[in-house]
Amino acid sequence: MVYRPDVLVTFLTDFGLEDDFVGTCHGVMKRIAPDVEIIDITHGIQPQGVLQGALVLANTLPYVPEGVHLAVVDPYVGTERRALALRSGDGRLFVGPDNGLLVPAAQKLGGIDAAYELTNRDYALEPVSATFHGRDIFAPATAHLAKGVGIEELGPAIEPGSLKQLSVPEPEVSEKRIRACCLYVDRFGNMQLNLRREHVEQLGIEPGSQVELELSSERYYAIAARTYADARPGEIILYQDAYENIAIAISAGSAADTFQARPGSDVRIRVAE
Amino acid sequence: MVYRPDVLVTFLTDFGLEDDFVGTCHGVMKRIAPDVEIIDITHGIQPQGVLQGALVLANTLPYVPEGVHLAVVDPYVGTERRALALRSGDGRLFVGPDNGLLVPAAQKLGGIDAAYELTNRDYALEPVSATFHGRDIFAPATAHLAKGVGIEELGPAIEPGSLKQLSVPEPEVSEKRIRACCLYVDRFGNMQLNLRREHVEQLGIEPGSQVELELSSERYYAIAARTYADARPGEIILYQDAYENIAIAISAGSAADTFQARPGSDVRIRVAE
Amino acid sequence: MVYRPDVLVTFLTDFGLEDDFVGTCHGVMKRIAPDVEIIDITHGIQPQGVLQGALVLANTLPYVPEGVHLAVVDPYVGTERRALALRSGDGRLFVGPDNGLLVPAAQKLGGIDAAYELTNRDYALEPVSATFHGRDIFAPATAHLAKGVGIEELGPAIEPGSLKQLSVPEPEVSEKRIRACCLYVDRFGNMQLNLRREHVEQLGIEPGSQVELELSSERYYAIAARTYADARPGEIILYQDAYENIAIAISAGSAADTFQARPGSDVRIRVAE
Repeated sequence: MVYRPDVLVTFLTDFGLEDDFVGTCHGVMKRIAPDVEIIDITHGIQPQGVLQGALVLANTLPYVPEGVHLAVVDPYVGTERRALALRSGDGRLFVGPDNGLLVPAAQKLGGIDAAYELTNRDYALEPVSATFHGRDIFAPATAHLAKGVGIEELGPAIEPGSLKQLSVPEPEVSEKRIRACCLYVDRFGNMQLNLRREHVEQLGIEPGSQVELELSSERYYAIAARTYADARPGEIILYQDAYENIAIAISAGSAADTFQARPGSDVRIRVAE
Repeated sequence: MVYRPDVLVTFLTDFGLEDDFVGTCHGVMKRIAPDVEIIDITHGIQPQGVLQGALVLANTLPYVPEGVHLAVVDPYVGTERRALALRSGDGRLFVGPDNGLLVPAAQKLGGIDAAYELTNRDYALEPVSATFHGRDIFAPATAHLAKGVGIEELGPAIEPGSLKQLSVPEPEVSEKRIRACCLYVDRFGNMQLNLRREHVEQLGIEPGSQVELELSSERYYAIAARTYADARPGEIILYQDAYENIAIAISAGSAADTFQARPGSDVRIRVAE
Repeated sequence: MVYRPDVLVTFLTDFGLEDDFVGTCHGVMKRIAPDVEIIDITHGIQPQGVLQGALVLANTLPYVPEGVHLAVVDPYVGTERRALALRSGDGRLFVGPDNGLLVPAAQKLGGIDAAYELTNRDYALEPVSATFHGRDIFAPATAHLAKGVGIEELGPAIEPGSLKQLSVPEPEVSEKRIRACCLYVDRFGNMQLNLRREHVEQLGIEPGSQVELELSSERYYAIAARTYADARPGEIILYQDAYENIAIAISAGSAADTFQARPGSDVRIRVAE
């Protein structure tokens, strides 16, 4: 099989894998576009976690082949929220709901070049259910795009400026302390924060620095480190994760379990005295 | 790659993805039929949930490409229960245990045209273990069918009427109330009931109706709605789900968690006074 | 598509499927080797469960096609532990960390014929993060091997005898009793022990024997059986599992839940009086 980027699809949702939702969408795409190849980025986004889904999509797309990028985290399915297809500046295509989910990834990959509303029912299943647009609208549109249907066939162009945007919580960074929040917790209990390296460098924190953390009104000492095993088992570390976010981990343990942290949890950081 | 329906396999089990069971079966199929393509419908059927697996298979198969449909939920593995290959009226092939798992899907797709018992060990692994027929009998038979081996090669024909059937719990519908049960709970906590639209219409319930539900001897008010976001967050809704079953959800919440419901839970419905 | 064993990859990790880690590695491999085919053996190895990962890999590889076998369970990512590519005696290739993970599988499949350290950054992503070598080192090396890059291109040869080994806990078997331990618990709650058939046969245990088990200082009666349904629901059985390990199950129940057992739990067995 010759690799044709136009038939590769990536797929990210909050559907989980316990139910048939992901498999059914695969089936729908394969019925329409039998030679499409689908890479499942993840289906473990927390239910209805639009912000989390948007961040994971933006983090991962630079690592996956170009293609049609389908993402569905869709708490307002069945309401007036629009269904979208976008084209980014570097030519990637995106399909998903108009709730901000696609925007950070598209902006990172060249900006939003064009946007269309998925209204053409020739490229949807019939009938369209009220609660599973992943199967009935988004997967079919994705498969048709992968087969080579022009994006402008799917419905009317819409103004990119009219797309719904997410607000990503911003940290407060002063001379001596940072007030941040947890954006994401992974399987290992690592807590991704809404911080980049430049934020912690403003406090003079670098690998080896002693750091004081405040979580749930409790104080902890941590060490700034490069990787988990740079600290002793049980030590708390502050590090730059593989997607260049600042994160908190416990060496050979779970930070999220220990601190009962989850997306949205407040985290305060300062250099230890 | 030209699409050849005969080499597409769909795969549904209660194996979960924590262990190697699914991956090993993929490996077995790929060793036998290297160009087979496998769509995983789901492996999240509750352990030994034969009825649940049968319902999910019947719900989803209309959405996936035709091919060989492998399903394994098999509490009686290693006993005298038969191993089957079926052909449905519309030409689809099914492989799995004779415990009722395959029957509702095959009946929906043209009825059971022919049934064979998998006894020919030329199409099984050697040796056959007592506890993992998915790997040793069902996956190999599926792969051989996908490669083009005739179904009648796999073993002797058996009488379709002799196949084990499942009993799906029937609702009791009277003029003013319905006694139903929960068949399935999905990741979002939505509770699928053993009801179709015609059942609730007999009580005059339609979108917008106020409904009284009784779950675990507690009463709740719900609203009949088209989709989750048609209600206010926290409101209970009764709706027709994407597979045309009547279901209960909580807008922006989990009905199953709130009501501690699971498959088999009793649900009573009547029109609110 | 003609099947080319050299482009098949198998993939086993402790990454889970909740996050993007697995999908991102798929993406990385597909960018480098677009026609590679990836079989996910499992990503459900317990976090940092190197021994468990090694045992599952060795159990399953005989059932999957030959190819490049990528495995990542890597608590010492980012430290001085080496990154490896191995070739086994039967020509299979392995990629993963030097922590013992790959060794039992390679030994089972012909022994370790050659070993190389992955130091050539031409076959890694740039930059290499400190915490996600699955994405930045192991997946790229795997994809290059699958494309036909010679294993000796990836870095310097190293002495197979210098590879880190795991110690698998050995049972104590006396004339009348066995002291064993649980190596693995599967989704169904079945407890795989560090025993083979010859161990229990030394006590004269065979299908039908009454057996006394001691778990967490409690005693239980069990029956040696061939398969789950050979016992009555609720009965404890001792049986040889599909990978030829001796295991404990509860017919129509979960042994691990009942006994609160997990990998490492102590199990004593003797013939019932």
